[in-house]
Amino acid sequence: MPSAATPAPCYFLQFSFYSSPLGLPFFFTATTIATSGRGGLVAAFTGRWELLDASCIARNCGRAVSSPPSLLPFVSAPRALHASTDTTIMRFLFNIRNLHSPTAQCTSKCEEDEKKRFCWLRFDKRFFGSAAAVIERNASFSTLNSDDVSYFKDLLGEKSVVEDEDVLLTANTDWMRKYKGSSKLLLQPKSTHEVSQILKYCNSRCLPVVPQGGNTGLVGGSVPVFDEVIINIGSMNNIISLDKVSGILVCEAGCILENLISFLDNHGFVMPLDLGAKGSCQIGGNVSTNAGGLRLVRYGSLHGSVLGLEAVLANGDVLDMLGTLRKDNTGYDLKQLFIGSEGSLGIVTKVSILTPPKLSSVNLAFLACKDYFSCQKLLVEAKRRLGDILSAFEFLDNQSMDLVLNHLEGVRNPLPSSMHNFYVLIETTGSDESYDKEKLEAFLLRAMEGGLISDGVLSQDINQASSFWRIREGLPEALMKAGPVYKYDLSIPVEKMYDLVEEMRIRLGQTAKVVAYGHLGDSNLHLNISAPQYDDKILAQIEPYVYEWTSKHRGSISAEHGLGLMKANHISYSKSPETVRLMGSIKKLLDPNGILNPYKVLPQSLKSCH
Amino acid sequence: MPSAATPAPCYFLQFSFYSSPLGLPFFFTATTIATSGRGGLVAAFTGRWELLDASCIARNCGRAVSSPPSLLPFVSAPRALHASTDTTIMRFLFNIRNLHSPTAQCTSKCEEDEKKRFCWLRFDKRFFGSAAAVIERNASFSTLNSDDVSYFKDLLGEKSVVEDEDVLLTANTDWMRKYKGSSKLLLQPKSTHEVSQILKYCNSRCLPVVPQGGNTGLVGGSVPVFDEVIINIGSMNNIISLDKVSGILVCEAGCILENLISFLDNHGFVMPLDLGAKGSCQIGGNVSTNAGGLRLVRYGSLHGSVLGLEAVLANGDVLDMLGTLRKDNTGYDLKQLFIGSEGSLGIVTKVSILTPPKLSSVNLAFLACKDYFSCQKLLVEAKRRLGDILSAFEFLDNQSMDLVLNHLEGVRNPLPSSMHNFYVLIETTGSDESYDKEKLEAFLLRAMEGGLISDGVLSQDINQASSFWRIREGLPEALMKAGPVYKYDLSIPVEKMYDLVEEMRIRLGQTAKVVAYGHLGDSNLHLNISAPQYDDKILAQIEPYVYEWTSKHRGSISAEHGLGLMKANHISYSKSPETVRLMGSIKKLLDPNGILNPYKVLPQSLKSCH
Repeated sequence: MPSAATPAPCYFLQFSFYSSPLGLPFFFTATTIATSGRGGLVAAFTGRWELLDASCIARNCGRAVSSPPSLLPFVSAPRALHASTDTTIMRFLFNIRNLHSPTAQCTSKCEEDEKKRFCWLRFDKRFFGSAAAVIERNASFSTLNSDDVSYFKDLLGEKSVVEDEDVLLTANTDWMRKYKGSSKLLLQPKSTHEVSQILKYCNSRCLPVVPQGGNTGLVGGSVPVFDEVIINIGSMNNIISLDKVSGILVCEAGCILENLISFLDNHGFVMPLDLGAKGSCQIGGNVSTNAGGLRLVRYGSLHGSVLGLEAVLANGDVLDMLGTLRKDNTGYDLKQLFIGSEGSLGIVTKVSILTPPKLSSVNLAFLACKDYFSCQKLLVEAKRRLGDILSAFEFLDNQSMDLVLNHLEGVRNPLPSSMHNFYVLIETTGSDESYDKEKLEAFLLRAMEGGLISDGVLSQDINQASSFWRIREGLPEALMKAGPVYKYDLSIPVEKMYDLVEEMRIRLGQTAKVVAYGHLGDSNLHLNISAPQYDDKILAQIEPYVYEWTSKHRGSISAEHGLGLMKANHISYSKSPETVRLMGSIKKLLDPNGILNPYKVLPQSLKSCH
Repeated sequence: MPSAATPAPCYFLQFSFYSSPLGLPFFFTATTIATSGRGGLVAAFTGRWELLDASCIARNCGRAVSSPPSLLPFVSAPRALHASTDTTIMRFLFNIRNLHSPTAQCTSKCEEDEKKRFCWLRFDKRFFGSAAAVIERNASFSTLNSDDVSYFKDLLGEKSVVEDEDVLLTANTDWMRKYKGSSKLLLQPKSTHEVSQILKYCNSRCLPVVPQGGNTGLVGGSVPVFDEVIINIGSMNNIISLDKVSGILVCEAGCILENLISFLDNHGFVMPLDLGAKGSCQIGGNVSTNAGGLRLVRYGSLHGSVLGLEAVLANGDVLDMLGTLRKDNTGYDLKQLFIGSEGSLGIVTKVSILTPPKLSSVNLAFLACKDYFSCQKLLVEAKRRLGDILSAFEFLDNQSMDLVLNHLEGVRNPLPSSMHNFYVLIETTGSDESYDKEKLEAFLLRAMEGGLISDGVLSQDINQASSFWRIREGLPEALMKAGPVYKYDLSIPVEKMYDLVEEMRIRLGQTAKVVAYGHLGDSNLHLNISAPQYDDKILAQIEPYVYEWTSKHRGSISAEHGLGLMKANHISYSKSPETVRLMGSIKKLLDPNGILNPYKVLPQSLKSCH
C-alpha cells in the first residue's frame, strides 16, 4: 500500500532514449533521483537494474508505441527520499537499443562510456495535467488480504488469479509508462458470471477495482492509482454472432479490435472504428472510452454504432441491454451511460455493434491550401460534393510538415515545389473504383479552379497512399523526436479552431514551436507545443489558457481520449456544474461504494459522494 | 378530476367518416352511446353538437392525419351511464365533409337524411394495448388551485397561461383521438428560464406535468392521463445558430421539424430526420421520443446525430449539455438519457444536431421479389453495392399491395403484369445525378440476373417516384379503409422478421388478414391484422403471442414509437428486469416526486417508486 512516504502515485517520470548510433546496446547503472516538483519530495533510486532480455528490447525497437518494460522497476522501487530540485538525475544500468518512447523526454544525452557502459541522464520532471493533484487513497476502501485471494482462486481457478510481479508490473502501468499503480492482484474472468461474482464480492468487501482491456488508454484510466484489483477482460474474447444480413456483430468485450476487423473483413463487413492501437485495444475498452479514431467522420460515434451492451454493475447485477436492433424505443437507452464512462459505472462484458459493408475503392489526395479559411471551405465543399464517399479529412500546418520532414526518416514532401501554409488529406471510400476516382478528380479540379487548393496530388497506388498517411500519422513520433512536447487533444468548432493556434504562437513567441494538425472533418485539433525543455514558465503560458480558451468557445478539452485520471479535475472546462453534479449522482446510484475505477473521470471535489 | 363514475381514461372511441358523394356537408344530431367493453360501463351522450366552422373542416379534409376536432365534445361530455353491449351507437349533428380518420373505424354507413341531416353511426369499441389497464391517479399529487394559476400568470403573463376549454380540449387529446386527459391548464413558456421556474414550482407543489410538443405521438405520451399541467414548448421556436462549415444546427425545442427542414434546405443542409408528422411535430419531441422516420437507414438514430441538449430537470435545474461538437469525451454523455425517455426525466429546451449536406440526386426503384429470402439478399447486396448512396429500403408483401390497390383511389400497380409475393422500394440519394442512376441501374441489372428481382421499374420523374411512395406510405390509410385493424410496430432481426408474419397467418387462418410491410433496411416490421370486426377472440390469438414471439427473438415491441401510456406495462417484453429496475432508479433520482409525464414509459409495477 502506498504510504505518505512514497511518491504520490500521481507523480511520474517520463523519458525517452537516444539510440546508439551503432545500434549497439547501452548499459546503464542505476542511480536515480526523482522529484515530485512540489518543492520537496524527492526519491533517490539506487541499485543495479536487471538487464533486459535482448529479444524483449528488439520487440520494442523502432516502435512508437512502447517504452521498455524493464525501466519500470526504477519507478516502482524507490529506495530513499530526499529534498532536492525539480530535476531528476538518473544513472542506471540498462540494456537498451534504438528505443523510442512517444511520451518521454530526455533533455541531455547520455554520456556514454563504452567500458563501464553507464551514463547519466537528466530528466526534467513532468506531471500529467497542468497541476499535479495529490490524490489520497480512499480510506473507506478495504485492503486485499489472503482470504480475498483464496476466494478469487476458488471462484476463478488458480490460473486466473495473478499475483506474479512481472505480470502485475505490466498491468499496473499504462502503455505510455506515464501512470502506474501498485495493485497486488490481477483477475482474469472468463465469463460474465465470473465478472458478476467478482464485483459482488468486491462490493461487499469494499475492495476497489480497475477494469482493464488492452490498456492502451492515454489518460491513465485503465491502470490502478493505488492498490485496486485489476479485472482484465482479455480472456473474454469470443465472437458470439454476426448477422450477415444486417451486419450486426455480437462479441465479448475482450475481443481485440484488430481481430474483429479481420473477422469482419473476411465476411465483407468493416468495423465502424479504427485506431492506431487496434492491435492491443479491446472492444470493451473502446466502448467504455467511446473511442473516436479514424473512421468517425464516415461512420459516426459509438453512441450511434453500438446497438447493445451487457454490463455488470458494481453490486454484481448483470444488465442485459444486448439488443441487436437498429431501432428499439422501449424505455431509457441505458447502454449509452456505459459508452464513454470509462468503466466507472459498470464493466462492459458484451457488445453488439452495427458494422457497415466493406467498400473496396479507396482514394487519397494530398493537397496544399494557402490559408486556414481555404481548408475550411474545402471541408464544406468536400462534405457537399463527396459526402457519399468522404471517409477522412485531415489537416496539418506547415510547422507540422517541417517537423515531419526534419525528424522522420524516409518521408518526402509530396508537394515539394514550394512550402505551403496548410496541407489537407482527403480520403474517399466507396464501392466503385473508377467512378470514385473520377469524382474525386472532378472535385479537386473544381477546388483548384476556385482557388481553394494551391497544389495537390492523388495517390496512384497503395504505397503512395501509405506514404501520404505516414506524414499525418507520423506527426506524434516526429514531435517526440524533436524534444519535449506539451500535447492537447481538443475539440473546437472548425471556424475558430486555428485561432487558438495563432494565439498560442503570439503568447509563446520564440519560446516554443506551436504545431497543429488533426481531424478537421471532426473539428478535432491536436495542438502540440514543442519546447526546448519542460519548463514551468512555458507551461504557465499554456495552461490554463488553453483550457479556458477551449471552454470559452464551447470546445472540449478531451475530444477523444476521455478524462481518466489525467483530466478528471479539469472536467469543469467542458461540463457545466449541474452536469458534473448529476454525473456524481449517477455514479453514486450505480456504484454507491465507489469501487469501480476510483479517482477517475469525476473530479476530486465530488469524491466525497462515493 | 376523473372519478370512478367517468369512463377510465384508457378508454377511447375511434371513428372515421364516409364522405358525402357530392362533397356537401352532413349535419348530424347527437345521440350517442358508448361502451367500455368491459361488460358494463356505458356512456350515453345526448345533446346537439356545435357546428364546425366550414373552414375548419376544410382544413382537415382529405388529410389522413386528423379527425375533426369538434367531435371531441362527444367524448369529453358523457351525460349518463348504462349497462350495454360492446357496441357504440351514436347519432349526432355535425357539419362534415370528406374526412378520413386513419385510426378510426365505422362499420355501418350513415343513413343520410338530407332534410333532417342526421345519421346513425355504429362504432365497434376499440382499446389501446391488449388489455386496458386501469390507471389510478397518483394520490400524492396535488390538485391545481387558483393560487397556482395566479403564480403562473405572474410568471408567464396572462396570455401564456391557457384555461380556454377549446384549446385545452385539443391539448388534452392526442392526434389519433385515442388518448385523452382532463388537464385544466396549459402553460406556454417562452424561455428555458420560464420552463425552469414552472418546474421548480410544480415540483415544490407536487403538481404533475406533461411536456408537450407537436402532440403527434402514437402511444399517448404527449397528453395528460388525468389532470397534469400541460407544458407546451411550441412558443420556444427560435433557430439559434447554424454552423455552415460543420452543419451543426442549434435551435429551441419548439421548432417544428418542417420549418427546420426548410431552413436547412435554404442553406444547403438536410435534417437527418424526416417524418410524416413533420408539419406539426417539434424537434424537442422528436428528440424526447428518439423519433426514427424515413432517413434512419441513411443517417442513423438521433443518439448519433444529436450533439447536445439543454434540458430542465423536475426540480428546475437547467442542464446545459448543449455541446456543438462532434467529439467530446469529457465525462458521461448525459444528454443520451433525455433522448427517447419521453419527457419523463426532464424537458428538452434546446437541441444541437449534426445536419449532413443536402444531396441533389434522388432515384427510386420499385421492385418485385419472388420470396422473402430474396428481399433479404437484395438488402445485403444493396447495402454492399449502393452503401454510399442507399437512403431507403422498404418492403411490402402481396397482401399489402392487394389492400392498397383495393382501397386507395388512383393507385396503380407499377408492375401490373403479374402479382408478386413481395415488393421492395429502393431509394438512393447522392451528389451525382447521372452516375447515381447508372449505379442503381447496374445494381438492378445484376440483381435481376442473379434472380433476386423478378421484375422492377425505375422512376423516371418526381411524379412517378411519388406514385411509388404512395403505395408504401398509403398503407396505413388503406388498412383503415379496409376495416378494423390491430397494429404492431416491431423491430425484429431481418432473417426472422417474416417468420412472425407467416406464423400469424397460420394462427389466424381465415379469421383475419395479416398484412406486413415496413422499413426492411432498419429491421422494422409494421405488422397489421385486418379483421372484419374488433373481436376479443381475435385479439387473444394475437396478444400476447406477438409480444412473446418478439421478445423470444430479442426484438423490440416498439421500434420507433416509444412506450408512452400504451406500452408502459409491456416493457418487460423488450427490457430485462434489471434494466427496468435501473430505469426506475434513474427516474427516482432525476424526478423524485415523479411529476414529469407520470404514468408513462415505466410500468405501473414501478410506480411505487415515484
